[in-house]
Amino acid sequence: MQSLPDPTNRLIEQLSRLPGIGRKTAQRLAFYIMKSDNNIASNISKALLDVNEKVISCSECGGITEIDPCYICTSPKRDKNILCIVEEAPDIYAFERTNSFNGRYHVLGGALSPLDGIGPDELNIKSLKKRIHNDIEIVIATNPSVEGETTALYIAKLLSVYNLKITRLARGVPVGSDLEYIDEATLIRAMEGRTLV
Amino acid sequence: MQSLPDPTNRLIEQLSRLPGIGRKTAQRLAFYIMKSDNNIASNISKALLDVNEKVISCSECGGITEIDPCYICTSPKRDKNILCIVEEAPDIYAFERTNSFNGRYHVLGGALSPLDGIGPDELNIKSLKKRIHNDIEIVIATNPSVEGETTALYIAKLLSVYNLKITRLARGVPVGSDLEYIDEATLIRAMEGRTLV
Repeated sequence: MQSLPDPTNRLIEQLSRLPGIGRKTAQRLAFYIMKSDNNIASNISKALLDVNEKVISCSECGGITEIDPCYICTSPKRDKNILCIVEEAPDIYAFERTNSFNGRYHVLGGALSPLDGIGPDELNIKSLKKRIHNDIEIVIATNPSVEGETTALYIAKLLSVYNLKITRLARGVPVGSDLEYIDEATLIRAMEGRTLV
Repeated sequence: MQSLPDPTNRLIEQLSRLPGIGRKTAQRLAFYIMKSDNNIASNISKALLDVNEKVISCSECGGITEIDPCYICTSPKRDKNILCIVEEAPDIYAFERTNSFNGRYHVLGGALSPLDGIGPDELNIKSLKKRIHNDIEIVIATNPSVEGETTALYIAKLLSVYNLKITRLARGVPVGSDLEYIDEATLIRAMEGRTLV
C-alpha cells in the first residue's frame, strides 16, 4: 500500500485538529487545496499568520482587536453605564449584528464548568470587578445552558454587594419558531416571563 | 455596529472559500484558531505552504507525489500489465487502502461533463494513450455517477481500437447495506451482474 505524500499527510493532520473537521473532511479539503491553483493555499496561510500576528485580546473587555483597547471600549458614542457580560468574543459580534445594543462588553472567556476544570479563577472576573462603578447596569448574557446559567448565578451573587442593577437576557420562545416543537424548559420560561401586550 | 478586526475577516473569507465550509463554519474555525495558542495557526500555515511547494502531479499517472514519477509508477513490484483509470487522485488512495490492487493507476482529472465545460480535451486522455501497450488490462474505475458512466463509455470506445482487455468495476449492493434501502438502479445492476456461488 502506497501512502499519501508526507506534506499531504501533515496538512490532513493539521486540518483535522480543527473543531468539527474529521479526518475524511480534512482529506477532502487537502485534496481540494492541492487541486486548486497555488493561491488558495498561500492566501489561507497568509491569513492565518496575519491573525496570529495582528489580532490580540483587548485588555479592557477581553474581546478581539487589532488595537488595544478595542474600538468598542474607547468609543465615546458607547454608553459607559451598561456592561454586557458574555462568555466568548464571538458573542460580542452576535449582539453587534443586531445594531440594538449601545453599551460595552466584558468577555469571561468561558463559563463555569467544574468537570472541565473551569472555576472562577479561569474566567476574567478580576478584570470585571475593576470595571464596575456606580450607576452601571450589568446585563448577564451568558449562554442559556447549564454552565451559562451557573455562571450567571455566580456573577449575580458576586456583584450583589455593589448594589447595582443586574439584568439577564429574557428566556422565551425564539422568533419564528413553532410552539409545537419547543422544549418544555423554554416554554416554562416563556410563560413565567410573559409580558403585558 | 462594530465589525470584526480586518485580519479576522480576511481569515473567515479565505476559509469560507473551501468546499463545504460556509461563512458560519469559517467564523467558528477562525475564533477557535484565535482562541488556541499560536501554534495551531502557524502549523496549518506551514503545512499549507509545504503542500504548495513539495507536492506535485506525477507526469506519468497524474497522481500526487513528492518525487516525479511517483512511487507507484516506478515500483518494480507493481504489475505493469494492469492499469486502473480513476477520476481523481484521492481515488488512488481509496484503492491503496484496500491493499488488494497491485497494478498502476491513471488519473483523468475529472469526468466528462459538457454542462460544466469538461470535454475530452480537459481530461488526461492523451497521456493515457501513451501508456497503452500490448497485453495491458484496463480497469475503468470512474465513479458510478452519470458523468462517470459517460466517461467510462467514452474511454472504452476510444480504446476499443487497441484490442485490449477492458473491464469495469462491478456495480452491485455495497457490503453491509440493507436491501430494503437500496435504490432501484443499484438493485437492477446487482441482479444483472449476479455471480455463481
